[in-house]
Amino acid sequence: MKISARNTLKGKIVAVEKGATTAHVKIEIADGTVVTASITNESVDALGLTVGGEAYAVVKSSDVMIAVD
Amino acid sequence: MKISARNTLKGKIVAVEKGATTAHVKIEIADGTVVTASITNESVDALGLTVGGEAYAVVKSSDVMIAVD
Amino acid sequence: MKISARNTLKGKIVAVEKGATTAHVKIEIADGTVVTASITNESVDALGLTVGGEAYAVVKSSDVMIAVD
Amino acid sequence: MKISARNTLKGKIVAVEKGATTAHVKIEIADGTVVTASITNESVDALGLTVGGEAYAVVKSSDVMIAVD
Amino acid sequence: MKISARNTLKGKIVAVEKGATTAHVKIEIADGTVVTASITNESVDALGLTVGGEAYAVVKSSDVMIAVD
Amino acid sequence: MKISARNTLKGKIVAVEKGATTAHVKIEIADGTVVTASITNESVDALGLTVGGEAYAVVKSSDVMIAVD
Repeated sequence: MKISARNTLKGKIVAVEKGATTAHVKIEIADGTVVTASITNESVDALGLTVGGEAYAVVKSSDVMIAVD
Repeated sequence: MKISARNTLKGKIVAVEKGATTAHVKIEIADGTVVTASITNESVDALGLTVGGEAYAVVKSSDVMIAVD
Repeated sequence: MKISARNTLKGKIVAVEKGATTAHVKIEIADGTVVTASITNESVDALGLTVGGEAYAVVKSSDVMIAVD
Repeated sequence: MKISARNTLKGKIVAVEKGATTAHVKIEIADGTVVTASITNESVDALGLTVGGEAYAVVKSSDVMIAVD
Repeated sequence: MKISARNTLKGKIVAVEKGATTAHVKIEIADGTVVTASITNESVDALGLTVGGEAYAVVKSSDVMIAVD
Repeated sequence: MKISARNTLKGKIVAVEKGATTAHVKIEIADGTVVTASITNESVDALGLTVGGEAYAVVKSSDVMIAVD
């Protein structure tokens, strides 16, 4: 499946924390650069996400902001 | 200003394309890894974004999805 | 690629309207039910989206609201 | 109230799962097609959402992605 | 129609700027406090939005970030 | 840090409710006008958010919808 979301960052899962309904998954996309995703517990199970696995952080362009110092 | 958004990826602006109201800004956050942001033209002007400048791509965790092969 | 987004609605593309940077793509997911997506022109080209083609509307659960009469 | 969000999909609530702060509500918008919404518990109470009730899944166009096989 | 989005800020429309496909609508929700919405041109027409009219800015809680100085 | 998000509403924190992974923070941005944010518990800790403190509700324009009566 190819998706319109322009941002697909490959990395390794370094944390999976399930809450009551919402989970936080952290992916290290480069040395010391970690991206946090807030997704449903259901997705964690459906995709079989576990620490150490390879995965992609996917973000739609309209959800990316820019900041400057 | 400190913001709750968990994802702040530092990089260099490699493209700024203004449309009629919406602009696309591309930031290279690592060698060969480019993040695209869709923001208002107004923001491009307010922040003075130009190719070559340093900037951050900022994303709220609830806007990050996870994908696996 | 499998994605964490919980909502994947299959349908047929009924309209592709490109703007200066942002395109609107409409997918008919059931008789008379059309979903509108606002994506980058770049994605329209990358995915080769054209009227009549099959496609999926994909939405992250945290982007779905509920309304009642 | 009329809203700018272009996507309003009518259906029947088939599940309401409350978490600690976040609830998942599922609406069947067509035979076998279920949409999942992640909303606040507060909204579930304010709208009186219960299984079997009629409701709409509402999505802003800029939150819809397109995928192809 | 009642919606799950927790944030509904009443105000007066002070600007409507249409682009090729995307419009920017500004609502003054308090003296000197203006909220900008990026919506489809289609919605501007469907809702008949014009400067001077009363309207609400509606935001889902999961789209609100917090910042501190 | 300056951010591209066009909407920054200053106010006072009137509630911080932590869930299992997701917190709800409420900011009063004007007399009787309260904005609710759904953010990670992690952010609440990182920013030291507590009731009575000053804070900003920050929203990207593409996440703002417009409604009319």
